[in-house]
Amino acid sequence: MTEVSRRTFLAGTAGSTAAGLAGAALAAGGVTRVNAQAPRSAQLPAASPAPAGARPIPSAYRYKVGQVQVTAIADGMRTIPLSDSFVRNQPKAQVNAALKAAFLPENEISIPFTVLLLDMGGRLVLVDTGNGPGQGPVGQLAATMRAIGVDPAQVDQVVISHFHGDHINGLLTAEGTPAFPKAQLMVPEREWAFWMDEGQMSRAPEAMKGSFQNVRRVFKPFEGKVERYAWDKEVAPGLTAVGTPGHTPGHTSFALDSDFETLFIQSDITNIPSLFVRNPSWQLMFDMDPAAAAEVRRNTYDRLAAERMMVAGYHFPFPGAAYLDKDGDGFAYVPVLWRPAL
Amino acid sequence: MTEVSRRTFLAGTAGSTAAGLAGAALAAGGVTRVNAQAPRSAQLPAASPAPAGARPIPSAYRYKVGQVQVTAIADGMRTIPLSDSFVRNQPKAQVNAALKAAFLPENEISIPFTVLLLDMGGRLVLVDTGNGPGQGPVGQLAATMRAIGVDPAQVDQVVISHFHGDHINGLLTAEGTPAFPKAQLMVPEREWAFWMDEGQMSRAPEAMKGSFQNVRRVFKPFEGKVERYAWDKEVAPGLTAVGTPGHTPGHTSFALDSDFETLFIQSDITNIPSLFVRNPSWQLMFDMDPAAAAEVRRNTYDRLAAERMMVAGYHFPFPGAAYLDKDGDGFAYVPVLWRPAL
Repeated sequence: MTEVSRRTFLAGTAGSTAAGLAGAALAAGGVTRVNAQAPRSAQLPAASPAPAGARPIPSAYRYKVGQVQVTAIADGMRTIPLSDSFVRNQPKAQVNAALKAAFLPENEISIPFTVLLLDMGGRLVLVDTGNGPGQGPVGQLAATMRAIGVDPAQVDQVVISHFHGDHINGLLTAEGTPAFPKAQLMVPEREWAFWMDEGQMSRAPEAMKGSFQNVRRVFKPFEGKVERYAWDKEVAPGLTAVGTPGHTPGHTSFALDSDFETLFIQSDITNIPSLFVRNPSWQLMFDMDPAAAAEVRRNTYDRLAAERMMVAGYHFPFPGAAYLDKDGDGFAYVPVLWRPAL
Repeated sequence: MTEVSRRTFLAGTAGSTAAGLAGAALAAGGVTRVNAQAPRSAQLPAASPAPAGARPIPSAYRYKVGQVQVTAIADGMRTIPLSDSFVRNQPKAQVNAALKAAFLPENEISIPFTVLLLDMGGRLVLVDTGNGPGQGPVGQLAATMRAIGVDPAQVDQVVISHFHGDHINGLLTAEGTPAFPKAQLMVPEREWAFWMDEGQMSRAPEAMKGSFQNVRRVFKPFEGKVERYAWDKEVAPGLTAVGTPGHTPGHTSFALDSDFETLFIQSDITNIPSLFVRNPSWQLMFDMDPAAAAEVRRNTYDRLAAERMMVAGYHFPFPGAAYLDKDGDGFAYVPVLWRPAL
């Protein structure tokens, strides 16, 4: 180290210069929260508008799985207060500790929604459809598709993983017409059988009746045109439906195989990874059969880790593709490396 | 668990259905590499063109630090074979083990380049400039800026961290004229003093002489207009230069402070995190004073981890912003959560 650099370095180490590494906050020590230091920036105008001509940046990312071009398209992100019941079998303090360990804000949960568009040699297959229009920070799928130059009318096939609103509501436009007018619509037969059963609806707790009604509302415009697929069948070339029930009775994941590559599309085997990949036995309030969901989760992740297989998650941080590694009693989440070009 | 779901789940567990979770590969077991399973996809056309009308997706991401709007803009990524000397003080086998642990391909290194555009209440400040035009998979800065609606001519100020070609070559267009014609150009005075010194150039090893000549080539069109800044000074409102020498003699990082938030812009305190954040004592071949670089790295990261401060790295995986957490003798790299909207 030269004398010059040593002087600067030591000055920084001792915290003796107010303008050293991040200034007074670091010198003071003991500050453990992000953003806790005193403000020291020069005053800027209150508004920080986008530069003239700047366009919103679409949250979309392309990668390849063998010959298939996968585009991860953000439908948006919803931030909700952390309720006592968000994780059924953990106290809120424990959940907050996990959020903090992941460098996420405490007392709130930010849930991303990422839809996959698969280009199979020109055939466009969409897996799930987002929250639908008019939902504030979410429901952005169609707009983001258009921003990257894909017209929803080009989609050849829509494959649904399960019938929660954040996966099916995007099937309709704000006017209630099919959002992907040309697309063949495929849904899990077990999911259809459960939600369309009048007995199940009548026996359901009051809080769940809205979900049954929503399913009927969404699929009504497709009457007679909904193709029901069985688990373990190919629903598109190289795209195999994998039964992973628990989150819902007919909850389905997919294995996308092309050439020598596989992507496991997990759908909602878990929600945000900082909580549930890290701690696979934690039970999400939205899991209809929490014990079954936890068992499916642990067994699936054991295999993904052992096989070092890439996995895409609907609620994983955008772009939502990762590898899972065994780590103690849970799993470490390793995002794929972002490649700016295919 | 219902009978139905149990049946499917058990079928998957036993690997008794060829089309279960990821098919035969998982059933066979013992396959430990990604993409190692036999192909089972239906044949697709050889080419997988972008869907009609699809545009390339710019790799750009916006986030806020206090009142400052930060746009991470990918200049591209370069993949090079892993040489024996890429990490000076580790055998290649050890480096490959670290790559594998990070779920990255062995025997190659993919290095991303991410430039930051800071919008300070309408004033646009660019930190570094990328590899410059005509560099194949890199040198994409200007094109990506235009794709998100920012004209390089709008940039008010360019601040350079150090004089390696991947940071300064983007100052010029393919025609050799200033790429950001309106911008005030600021460089570290210590970096300027080192690289512009004729004695240093004449004493430099032959392999380094090209770097000295490149510095002269790049700055020639700016003769008399290059403003040299000192460490520990504000170079723009809230943007303080922090001396972090070792990678180069005048290598500079920045602390961006606005309201109660701070982003530490580390520049090249380290290269890719899977190797050097994980193992801060590993020495990169491009570090001119490896021992000084390692010392600066460890001390800086100790502080960033203790303060839980966000850090942006020029060679970090896009979008290149993260938190660092102490983890054994090294640090864990925790990418920031991607937020689709500001």
